[in-house]
Amino acid sequence: MISEKMYELGSKRSVIRELFEYGKKRAAEIGSENVFDFSLGNPSIPAPESVKEAILDLVENTDPIALHGYTSAQGDLTVRDTVAKHINGISEKCNVTPDNIYMTSGAAASLSICLKAVIVPEDEVITFAPFFPEYRVFAEAAGAKFSVIPPNKEDFQIDFDILGKSISEKTKAVIINSPNNPSGVVYSTETISKLCKILTEKSKQYNHSIYLITDEPYRELIYSNDKLPYVPDFYDNTFVCYSYSKSLSLPGERIGYIMVSPLMKEWQKVYAAVCGAGRALGYVCASSLFQRVIARCIGDTSDISEYLENRNFLYNSLKNMGFDCVSPSGAFYLFVKSPEEDANIFCERAKKHEILIVPGDDFGCSGYVRIAYCVKRERIEKALPSFEKLINEYK
Amino acid sequence: MISEKMYELGSKRSVIRELFEYGKKRAAEIGSENVFDFSLGNPSIPAPESVKEAILDLVENTDPIALHGYTSAQGDLTVRDTVAKHINGISEKCNVTPDNIYMTSGAAASLSICLKAVIVPEDEVITFAPFFPEYRVFAEAAGAKFSVIPPNKEDFQIDFDILGKSISEKTKAVIINSPNNPSGVVYSTETISKLCKILTEKSKQYNHSIYLITDEPYRELIYSNDKLPYVPDFYDNTFVCYSYSKSLSLPGERIGYIMVSPLMKEWQKVYAAVCGAGRALGYVCASSLFQRVIARCIGDTSDISEYLENRNFLYNSLKNMGFDCVSPSGAFYLFVKSPEEDANIFCERAKKHEILIVPGDDFGCSGYVRIAYCVKRERIEKALPSFEKLINEYK
Repeated sequence: MISEKMYELGSKRSVIRELFEYGKKRAAEIGSENVFDFSLGNPSIPAPESVKEAILDLVENTDPIALHGYTSAQGDLTVRDTVAKHINGISEKCNVTPDNIYMTSGAAASLSICLKAVIVPEDEVITFAPFFPEYRVFAEAAGAKFSVIPPNKEDFQIDFDILGKSISEKTKAVIINSPNNPSGVVYSTETISKLCKILTEKSKQYNHSIYLITDEPYRELIYSNDKLPYVPDFYDNTFVCYSYSKSLSLPGERIGYIMVSPLMKEWQKVYAAVCGAGRALGYVCASSLFQRVIARCIGDTSDISEYLENRNFLYNSLKNMGFDCVSPSGAFYLFVKSPEEDANIFCERAKKHEILIVPGDDFGCSGYVRIAYCVKRERIEKALPSFEKLINEYK
Repeated sequence: MISEKMYELGSKRSVIRELFEYGKKRAAEIGSENVFDFSLGNPSIPAPESVKEAILDLVENTDPIALHGYTSAQGDLTVRDTVAKHINGISEKCNVTPDNIYMTSGAAASLSICLKAVIVPEDEVITFAPFFPEYRVFAEAAGAKFSVIPPNKEDFQIDFDILGKSISEKTKAVIINSPNNPSGVVYSTETISKLCKILTEKSKQYNHSIYLITDEPYRELIYSNDKLPYVPDFYDNTFVCYSYSKSLSLPGERIGYIMVSPLMKEWQKVYAAVCGAGRALGYVCASSLFQRVIARCIGDTSDISEYLENRNFLYNSLKNMGFDCVSPSGAFYLFVKSPEEDANIFCERAKKHEILIVPGDDFGCSGYVRIAYCVKRERIEKALPSFEKLINEYK
């Protein structure tokens, strides 16, 4: 007599969560130094010192009633102003004000709120494989049909032919995620331009706005000299969903924002719907302390050079062993081709070598595995002989 | 083409919010010391020192990766264990374990998640006037029809005749809130017993569980010697929605919990649905720092003696002037009978004396006004002559 849908969502563990639990059990059996767990995207680099300093100073020197009190539902005005100004330093086209910023409890909240704000019954939401599996949960919870464009396994950019055929008059929103979890791929300026051109055409054809929702928790985790294109500069009807989970290593504190582009058609109305959706989902305000912390640390990141070193070391090592791997430009994942067709079987084999990696099937991309390299360097070093043994089984 | 429902929720300001904005404007005009704003339920007493000490110690002496990292979705195991043990010190009947506790981002999240977990299409949710207006938002967002039992203006306990007639086979959940916002009334043991007896009978009659959701952010704010009955000791199918917003003066940090009673029928299944609902609403985990803070401060409260003094002072002063006021046993509100039938007109008159108070209509109770006395003592003192002038207009 309860909601069977919610029961199913709560009782069906994700593959990643299963692996994580297995890893803990295995570590208890053979010692955690002997389990090579690459399953989780949990930052392995501490928050920068500026975060610690900000918390200590705020707690020592601010009136606790103001510091821990309610902010307005969309976030503290000064904090939103700081975020808006920061974005104006990135964007070449948007003039963002605090009225475009809605502070959230992280990216999952940002996405849920944007979708709830724009979806009406019968709407469809499109994303591109490989994709973060919770997108389906959020889109369906908002009442949308969720459809996935299959992966373009050549370079993991977008397959525009299939996209063109998949957009219908029911398409209300498209979600992108670059740098991408799980592939580590960054969408090129060319990809973004082409995507936005198609969305503009299709919006005209169907005479309604198609919203582009860009999920950007990995924006700062990029390892090439290429500039990451800022999506709102390419497409007016854009929501940016940002989170400080990865850039400031604060995943458990749940702090991020939605930017409703000032170039969006009737953005004030859409922003109001964002406020309404936040209310309907039970959000009151993002943590008042952490709103202030991120305002003080705006533009800072954790020392991501460690991820870069991990990436280079692991990528080169695996390539030398004979693994085939997608070129990793950002985030902290390698997306490796499974040496046998079924990546699930490959992952089970890897487990026998105490290597925990995630099959791509859950991300909508069979035949690949995700290796999260946000781990201590020692774990990678100790794991290499096991990776070698694993690939040799296929030689 | 966006969700009109969400737009409406986001653009229609609540009466309280309107008053709050008016108060800020007026303060800029005549000085904040001359505006007697009693509109908001924002704690006026700082968090206890133990909160500050806990934050400082955690930030100084804990590995930041662990401190700010993801906890499991239901909350850190040690934190849940601490909460469970604390509840076992209150309850006379429940043996609560960490598996009954789901840490949330405050009471609004708790309520939204419980409702989403149990509601299926066609279900109804019942509450009792006067009630916190967001209950309607949360119940309707979960897909339920929301119905309100009119207030029993004699003593603001429950009108059981109307309740008995209002419960139908579609009733899935009943929400109570004691100590009550806005009336300040505490439900007696007799009221709770009688309510639970009726729910038990009706559950049998309709052959399905009717869930009792008890919203308890004001549990610690009680000013009589009577013991507050612990609802799960009276009724098995109970969810406790708790928040530390008021007891620890942390409303902006969004930290609380859901307790799924271990006496609930198939509680493991219901708990799984709670986990699923949290996921569907975009919650990942409650703030990892504040989970640890509340575990360290468990059982502490802000110095609520200030509220008690405010209550006594304001209640006695208003009574002496000739106001008629509901006996205030808890929370930090006085619920005063409007000297004219339409409390909205009365509140407009009060505004002319720079007194900002909230008409009861929004809480489902016409003819009354809510006065939030979680303010500095000076504000009450300075406001008394204005209250006197106001009541004299009716003499």
